[in-house]
Amino acid sequence: MEIKVMANILDKNDRIAADINCRLSKKGIFVLNLLGSPGSGKTSLLEKTIDVLKSELRLAVIEGDLFTSKDAERINSHGIPVIQINTGGGCHLDAIMVQNVLDRLHLDELDMIIIENVGNLVCPAEFNIGEDAKATVLSITEGEDKPLKYPLMFKQASVTVLNKVDLLPYTSFDMEAAIDDIISINPRMTLIQASCRTGEGLQPWFDWLREQVHNKQARS
Amino acid sequence: MEIKVMANILDKNDRIAADINCRLSKKGIFVLNLLGSPGSGKTSLLEKTIDVLKSELRLAVIEGDLFTSKDAERINSHGIPVIQINTGGGCHLDAIMVQNVLDRLHLDELDMIIIENVGNLVCPAEFNIGEDAKATVLSITEGEDKPLKYPLMFKQASVTVLNKVDLLPYTSFDMEAAIDDIISINPRMTLIQASCRTGEGLQPWFDWLREQVHNKQARS
Repeated sequence: MEIKVMANILDKNDRIAADINCRLSKKGIFVLNLLGSPGSGKTSLLEKTIDVLKSELRLAVIEGDLFTSKDAERINSHGIPVIQINTGGGCHLDAIMVQNVLDRLHLDELDMIIIENVGNLVCPAEFNIGEDAKATVLSITEGEDKPLKYPLMFKQASVTVLNKVDLLPYTSFDMEAAIDDIISINPRMTLIQASCRTGEGLQPWFDWLREQVHNKQARS
Repeated sequence: MEIKVMANILDKNDRIAADINCRLSKKGIFVLNLLGSPGSGKTSLLEKTIDVLKSELRLAVIEGDLFTSKDAERINSHGIPVIQINTGGGCHLDAIMVQNVLDRLHLDELDMIIIENVGNLVCPAEFNIGEDAKATVLSITEGEDKPLKYPLMFKQASVTVLNKVDLLPYTSFDMEAAIDDIISINPRMTLIQASCRTGEGLQPWFDWLREQVHNKQARS
């Protein structure tokens, strides 16, 4: 019976997610669902991304957090539209939450919406929220065993940013093992090794986003 | 209606958790629920703890993971009883899972059971699993904003281990702010700054565990 209820919830969620994606596709907006553990560097990656891409792409951000608006305040200081969703303790965003805030964005004036999900390497992977693609941020300080321990997150994502590589010399992180494991879960994964703190390695990430936006607009 | 179902699940869970705690209390076993994000260092903390305490206390570990037994294999190499629970994708342990494996431990020969929960800073805080106390591990590489963003985890815990302090010189982590925020959420929190990698700062953690076991046995 519990499984049945869960199936109903996911079914309803998926319908609304499809509606969101359809609506935004008509406007040629690329939507990214940004995922990762607490402290993996999702907001830092967003900040670097905005600073580089805001002159060429029209961006907006939706921030998902349990209670605070700390991340939205960080994004707001970078001069693009940002909306905060507080889940009130809920461990992931769902499509209804996103649908409820979409009208607060000027959708005719956007090329890309990035939705930063709640920091959690488990639950957010189970809920589509209208995105075209998922990106997972894994910081090397979390350890190379995480992809196999949390495989759904890596199975679902199109791109993984291996963040905080500036700390590699001070840890025992095995990059080769991490990459092997990610590829074993998802052979088509785009892998990016970077540091959001120093900025190194982020060029392929910007290029990947540019390509997604270009492809989305070409299809709409 | 969804809220009602959730309330029933939690109610049933709490009853079973109380049963577990009652059963283990009669045997004078102290039970710790070990919590934290993926990669915060829970298993490393366990390994250091076993190495120091296994000569004076009879320990066992229950490992909670989505799919793999990687952590249980690490613990097993330290020569104490360990049981793996795989949640099959579930984002937290619950009391039924723990109850189902308890008979596989020799309860008459134990002073302490440490249960390492699924790596997740959200959901595991909502489910009691029969523990006497919760401990939260927060690695400094996750950032000092995490306590306010994930307050329930810090409200519920009796002790927080601020881990990976060996990386402090290479990050912008604000220890004072982190401690202020944790204390604002939970004024009675025991705070321990340590590095499971180098071993520095762990003595107060061992002492805290010794005291909990002593108090538990004095009461039983």
